[in-house]
Amino acid sequence: MDVFPLPLARIGIIGGGQLGRMMAKAAKRLGCTCVVLDPTPGSPASQVAGHQILGDYHDPSKLRELAEICDVITFDIEDIDTETLAQLEQEGHRFHPSPRVLALIQDKLTQKQAFAAAGIPTAPFVELSEPSPEAFAAFGYPLVQKARRGGYDGRGVSIVKTPEDYDAHLPVPSLLERFVPAAKELAVVVARARDGECRCYPVVEMCFRSGENVLDLLLAPANIPSSVAEAAVDLAVRTVEMLDGVGIFGVELFLTETGELLVNEVAPRTHNSGHHTIEANVTDQFEQHLRAVVGLPLGVTDQLSPAAMINLLGAPGRRGRPIIKGMAEALAIPGVCLHLYGKATSAPFRKMGHVTVLDPDIETAKRKAERVRDLIEISAEDHP
Amino acid sequence: MDVFPLPLARIGIIGGGQLGRMMAKAAKRLGCTCVVLDPTPGSPASQVAGHQILGDYHDPSKLRELAEICDVITFDIEDIDTETLAQLEQEGHRFHPSPRVLALIQDKLTQKQAFAAAGIPTAPFVELSEPSPEAFAAFGYPLVQKARRGGYDGRGVSIVKTPEDYDAHLPVPSLLERFVPAAKELAVVVARARDGECRCYPVVEMCFRSGENVLDLLLAPANIPSSVAEAAVDLAVRTVEMLDGVGIFGVELFLTETGELLVNEVAPRTHNSGHHTIEANVTDQFEQHLRAVVGLPLGVTDQLSPAAMINLLGAPGRRGRPIIKGMAEALAIPGVCLHLYGKATSAPFRKMGHVTVLDPDIETAKRKAERVRDLIEISAEDHP
Repeated sequence: MDVFPLPLARIGIIGGGQLGRMMAKAAKRLGCTCVVLDPTPGSPASQVAGHQILGDYHDPSKLRELAEICDVITFDIEDIDTETLAQLEQEGHRFHPSPRVLALIQDKLTQKQAFAAAGIPTAPFVELSEPSPEAFAAFGYPLVQKARRGGYDGRGVSIVKTPEDYDAHLPVPSLLERFVPAAKELAVVVARARDGECRCYPVVEMCFRSGENVLDLLLAPANIPSSVAEAAVDLAVRTVEMLDGVGIFGVELFLTETGELLVNEVAPRTHNSGHHTIEANVTDQFEQHLRAVVGLPLGVTDQLSPAAMINLLGAPGRRGRPIIKGMAEALAIPGVCLHLYGKATSAPFRKMGHVTVLDPDIETAKRKAERVRDLIEISAEDHP
Repeated sequence: MDVFPLPLARIGIIGGGQLGRMMAKAAKRLGCTCVVLDPTPGSPASQVAGHQILGDYHDPSKLRELAEICDVITFDIEDIDTETLAQLEQEGHRFHPSPRVLALIQDKLTQKQAFAAAGIPTAPFVELSEPSPEAFAAFGYPLVQKARRGGYDGRGVSIVKTPEDYDAHLPVPSLLERFVPAAKELAVVVARARDGECRCYPVVEMCFRSGENVLDLLLAPANIPSSVAEAAVDLAVRTVEMLDGVGIFGVELFLTETGELLVNEVAPRTHNSGHHTIEANVTDQFEQHLRAVVGLPLGVTDQLSPAAMINLLGAPGRRGRPIIKGMAEALAIPGVCLHLYGKATSAPFRKMGHVTVLDPDIETAKRKAERVRDLIEISAEDHP
């Protein structure tokens, strides 16, 4: 018979954003307490966690302070200097995912190299130490240039279709990748327990706004044949097993126009493509992540209702204390579930919240989500 | 087009228990902030709300302090001196439900009188200013004696079946009620918006441990004919409309052995019989309550999966820092959703958490919930 004290575990969360916020809610119902490390006072996660260490994610002394008061440490963000983390891990502090996995993933080149070495299908790529028209031409157009570090929500990615578009390149260490015309972009949220057990959520379909790389609309489950869904799940599990990761991983895939599945990239954390699991699935991704990192059994990932999800982004051209328009009208639509993140300032394209729409019919869910996207605007009191 | 600042509203919660805790989570995702009034530092609700006024629920100065920094005030507990609240309401502070409704309900005699006056079927009763064997005999056995004030979770209720059981009576101002052999005990969670719109959750069935009056197992939906379910919903709505209440109300009913429906009592707050709505329904009772009290449209109450719910009570004979046994084993059962309340001390029969089990088959959900009840024990490090 298992026996735990309450609180069960003290969870350290590096980064105080929305992922940490939703994780903290799950942590509390599982009997855990949370400490958030974030430089912004009153960060979204700290509003729920109740305990924040004010400091930079990269500050070795703050990371040590966090490690020393927590039983297990996990992440709201992935772009953290892993050197200190590795040192702390060596001293016996527990991190999930481990700094090794984080380091491998946060460099998009080593991530792709790991896919290639493990035989995981991914778009052809080359390392690019310094961008030049010649190097681009040698690789061949159309291509995608990806910065090795610091990419997030479309930052650090440039699609360069012709030599004339070369000016759109990123002047940083990067990799060049074959531009793959994708019929669909898919994602699989995979949970892997400490003992290696993997459980996947049903495959979802991500729709992006043309020209941007921020998720515009998510459909769960994806409208794909079951054989493709099974293959995507297999590939996602292979990817996370290859990484030997513990916790939730978001595996993004391309379904090419020729029906091939390619792994695009992996996020070593709870993922935007799993937010709908809060309402739509038996165990949500945040609780699942905590079950994994704390060493509890994984929950079932069955989906109870089709869902569509949209992000609520700060309106362009405005920055300041948030103002929300159309919220009441949106909440009157049956099945609309709103999540605001408690950010003190709205900024252009900043993720301020999300909406999940549940409906027995996924096409209706999609239409409702599009309607909500048109209705709700998060702006700011003042101009920039 | 509706326009709100963020935070949308500052919610005051009188009482810092588990209802306030689950309410605070919902409040945050709707863009509200919360302040809890509770005498215990680090109360369950304050752990999520992040802001607590330390003080007694009955302390007029503390109630005023809360009212002055909040836009709307609501309740985790119902047994509050309503005099101060009524004064504050008169000064323009907003309370939902209103102190008038609270006062009427918290006295079980005036509650029953209101049912009777409105023609809402309820078990026959008489006022009893002072208990005596003669008064009991005059009313006739078997009877139920209910204290007018302070009843909660079976406290303040005594079932006296024969003159020989008279010693079990309560020596307080009370009412005597006909003991009704109930085929089932049902509950309907009703949400009523500021504009009077009512939405009900599907009728649930409450099973109590024999001899105690604490909910042992809840089944959602209840196993009753649809005609009975419709009648129960109608009766629950009539009851809440008669009260002119705003927010969530838990209406408890008896289904008698002769097929009659009687309203037993009403709780003017989110209710133990609605906890499963967190996972099982599109909009949970806590978000629904907030939508109502803040003035947002009500959400849909559709149930996505059958559910069974059990409370996790502190083990008898022990008091102190909680220890939880069997949690990991219980979490391995598919569909088990655990909610711990973060209480610092376990005490005999104290509500320490609850478990909702989702399963496509309600009988399986019930069996799993019973298994979880047998598995999980919340005890304490030290003896009393």
